Amino acid sequence: MQLSIIKIGGNIIDDEARLLAFLGSFTALPGKKILVHGGGKLATRVAEGLGIRQNLVDGRRITDEETLRVVTMVYAGTINKQIVARLQALGCPAMGLTGADGNAILSHKRVHPSIDYGFVGDVDAVNTSLLTSLLMLEKVLVIAPITHDGKGQLLNTNADTIAQELARGLSAGFDVSLIYSFEKSGVLMDAEDDGSVIRRINAADYADLKARQVIFAGMIPKLDNAFAALRSGVKKVIIGRAEELQFLLTGESGTTIIHE
Amino acid sequence: MQLSIIKIGGNIIDDEARLLAFLGSFTALPGKKILVHGGGKLATRVAEGLGIRQNLVDGRRITDEETLRVVTMVYAGTINKQIVARLQALGCPAMGLTGADGNAILSHKRVHPSIDYGFVGDVDAVNTSLLTSLLMLEKVLVIAPITHDGKGQLLNTNADTIAQELARGLSAGFDVSLIYSFEKSGVLMDAEDDGSVIRRINAADYADLKARQVIFAGMIPKLDNAFAALRSGVKKVIIGRAEELQFLLTGESGTTIIHE
Repeated sequence: MQLSIIKIGGNIIDDEARLLAFLGSFTALPGKKILVHGGGKLATRVAEGLGIRQNLVDGRRITDEETLRVVTMVYAGTINKQIVARLQALGCPAMGLTGADGNAILSHKRVHPSIDYGFVGDVDAVNTSLLTSLLMLEKVLVIAPITHDGKGQLLNTNADTIAQELARGLSAGFDVSLIYSFEKSGVLMDAEDDGSVIRRINAADYADLKARQVIFAGMIPKLDNAFAALRSGVKKVIIGRAEELQFLLTGESGTTIIHE
Repeated sequence: MQLSIIKIGGNIIDDEARLLAFLGSFTALPGKKILVHGGGKLATRVAEGLGIRQNLVDGRRITDEETLRVVTMVYAGTINKQIVARLQALGCPAMGLTGADGNAILSHKRVHPSIDYGFVGDVDAVNTSLLTSLLMLEKVLVIAPITHDGKGQLLNTNADTIAQELARGLSAGFDVSLIYSFEKSGVLMDAEDDGSVIRRINAADYADLKARQVIFAGMIPKLDNAFAALRSGVKKVIIGRAEELQFLLTGESGTTIIHE
């Protein structure tokens, strides 16, 4: 059975018109689906409004207790529920979840030798049984990037990672397409030319492109992650613009990454 | 099949120690269960922190757009997810929902001849099919007092009303006990004497107590609502202290209200 897992980033969430257009395309997408959303600028605005200082270490936001409170409010409250209500209005049977709900995604507080990231979670387990049951109830799941450690602690968790872990975990029961929406049209041969999208890459192509140093360096971590997902059973990973969602799954837009 | 629907108010939510004790008793409660939580003072504190003025008309808070944003953040984000994570830590398979999630509770924006309550929802329908499916997946539902109108609008909704509507709707498939936690030990013969709890009231007792003007006037709307719920099929309504939860269901504490 087909399952599409789609991650949208803050650039879509922050832009009302783009978000609504995206949610329309998402609703029209056939088959079972999960939407994983990131944060956007609202958390920063709410934190500023409440006088909570953002603590950055090496350019990374540290999730102290106050920041966790804000991201929980904004991601699991405002953003998740607004997306769910809008999808419902479009006729899409959306249901919002964090990783704490039904123990959907269990994580642990990040351990790092030199940086204390605070209340940031690294994923340990995805509750595929729960998620499969909800998908079988014909629900469309909308996942906020908040997980828990099973001991009562909520944890701020990277939405790209959540999408990837869901895709890996659910690959045992579904043919999973993992779609990362992104500010470019796909993987580009030339970073300056949005028309230079590589339509389809497999592992051999990727090795060749890397060897020839044709590929834009900034894409390498994304592609490495994509191939890791494919090695764990995900059928395909697609990178492209959220606005082109309906054409991403058919391969008409974006870059489709397959194992071979 | 037995189902307990328990409403807790802001006085419990605002008090960390009482909340944790309550969640322990709630977890220990046998059978299928739903927790409906109210708001507490956190929404007011966050609104004040963000400089959002509270708009009161005749002592009632008006839910303007900014206030709706705050209650959605606080009720569906902070409070709901903290309760869910804590219940999970206690081994209770909690899952949080608003009325928008899976279209669980559909409402409409309140229409009132003279007061514009703003984004306040009056409940139209409870999605018993969804809620029953989730209960059958052995999930314990934690409901935040936010509903939606099916057209993309979230609405602030009274938690007592939500508990009652859930109880009525689910009575077709379950033997529902509806429990309102409350700051007193139950329905009192003497409002000043917490020891004067009436242990059990049926419709005939109530008519008699009202005729003799024995009952505390402030309890009348609560009791009228309770009897209305019983007339719609709810098996019993129990009013008592959250701290005595385990004894409320057995009838050892609080006031149990039954039809006859």
